[in-house]
Amino acid sequence: MDVRQHIDNVLEATMTRADLPDAPPLLAKAMRHAVFPGGGRLRPRLTLAVAAACGNDLPAAADAAAAAIELLHCASLVHDDLPCFDDAHSRRGQASVHVAYGEPLAVLAGDALIVMAFQGLASGLAMVPERLPLLLGIVADAVGMPAGICAGQAWESEPTVKLAEYQRAKTGALFAASTMAGAAAAGREARSWRMLGECLGEAYQVADDLRDVAADPAELGKPVGRDAALGRPNAVGHLGIVGAVRRLESLVADAVASVPDCAGAGALRALIHKEAERFLPKELARYAA
Amino acid sequence: MDVRQHIDNVLEATMTRADLPDAPPLLAKAMRHAVFPGGGRLRPRLTLAVAAACGNDLPAAADAAAAAIELLHCASLVHDDLPCFDDAHSRRGQASVHVAYGEPLAVLAGDALIVMAFQGLASGLAMVPERLPLLLGIVADAVGMPAGICAGQAWESEPTVKLAEYQRAKTGALFAASTMAGAAAAGREARSWRMLGECLGEAYQVADDLRDVAADPAELGKPVGRDAALGRPNAVGHLGIVGAVRRLESLVADAVASVPDCAGAGALRALIHKEAERFLPKELARYAA
Repeated sequence: MDVRQHIDNVLEATMTRADLPDAPPLLAKAMRHAVFPGGGRLRPRLTLAVAAACGNDLPAAADAAAAAIELLHCASLVHDDLPCFDDAHSRRGQASVHVAYGEPLAVLAGDALIVMAFQGLASGLAMVPERLPLLLGIVADAVGMPAGICAGQAWESEPTVKLAEYQRAKTGALFAASTMAGAAAAGREARSWRMLGECLGEAYQVADDLRDVAADPAELGKPVGRDAALGRPNAVGHLGIVGAVRRLESLVADAVASVPDCAGAGALRALIHKEAERFLPKELARYAA
Repeated sequence: MDVRQHIDNVLEATMTRADLPDAPPLLAKAMRHAVFPGGGRLRPRLTLAVAAACGNDLPAAADAAAAAIELLHCASLVHDDLPCFDDAHSRRGQASVHVAYGEPLAVLAGDALIVMAFQGLASGLAMVPERLPLLLGIVADAVGMPAGICAGQAWESEPTVKLAEYQRAKTGALFAASTMAGAAAAGREARSWRMLGECLGEAYQVADDLRDVAADPAELGKPVGRDAALGRPNAVGHLGIVGAVRRLESLVADAVASVPDCAGAGALRALIHKEAERFLPKELARYAA
């Protein structure tokens, strides 16, 4: 089965607890709206790819880790889109959650998706509880304080932004957790997988900055030019388009080089090369080496 | 040491991760504002009391459970107070978080407190990982879908409210989790402790309804008469003051009777009687049997 389809199936299974008869139906719908249809499902694919490279002896654990990472990503998008932050009206080619369901249900959908990530870890790791403290810590740290997504978003409310912390927390943290969680779910040492996630996270950030200045909004499914409009840092602004494309290529090379020795290292390196090609918007491929 | 002071110390220790030098300082302050000074700390006291009754062989686990419960409670208050929900300007005698720090940091403080509850469980249970899946499931279910706090709050966005589900999820779920989490943290069977939490949760709800119609706002630290103003259900509305006080007493009796046999059962029953007296606002004590 296609890995994206597999991830959607795992997300569906995790989310059935929102569809029970006694649950409030509009919140259940708002949560589904935030998760389906998905974007690239990049982070959970990364989790599953690392778990596979590490032997993936218990697929239920890796699936729970992948689902948790994606649910937290979706939750962060719902809250980022709120009127008090980006006030974004569309996301993934459809209305953002607060536009479709109102602000109260958007706040609650984000909250409930955060919680659901952890509900899924509790049930998915029940067979291997000895792996849960590490995995739970990795996943939670990626979205909380001091250096997870909430911390990253909070830098936008500070009078002076620490740019490195901002980007590392806002985007890098969940990518780093995606690779580490894959290893932890498979019962392996996780720290040596951090570099892979960090490099890919930064590569993704540069690619996103490139898309923000250069992509077709219809292809992207959300408005472009938002960074300039909102005064946010953008790699293209200080490296130029060619410089940013070069930076992206060098980060992907670092990512490939960082893969720790393991049974599936070769296959994983090949996969990273292949996937990285998708990072670059079509309009910019001509700048690549 | 006084149990409230102990709980505040545990909360302080859990929250140090928000005070690290690379963390965004305003979010750290907004989170502290939401947690300190505390209210009654009823729920974590309940968790610790049940853990003690169950032998409390590993205080770090019970402390983590108690802190998680309280952080999630505080998070729910921050989001409930937001303009899109209750638009409450004060809480626990001080400005609500969004009034003091703005709406973006209030949304993020709630999110980061939810996550911090789980960060604390990951580190607090590292020594007894075999207890973590059950404990994590209990705590997460109490705040998520289908029947936790988010679900309860979401009933307010439905065209027709299922009243029993609304109250059970909005208030009862976290009380039930408070008792079950205490047992689970001490390595004991948790389900038989649910009834205790449910009875005390409903007693607390009735007491809260009584306070809403009868208390002095200065004593309460938040506005009164909000239920009537917001058209929300209130036990006093359909039972009258005397009937509501009687109902409260009967729920406390049921709570005491529900305590499962265990080494500390006698001491716990005595504690419940003593604590329940505090539920009733001074103005209403004359209605008690």
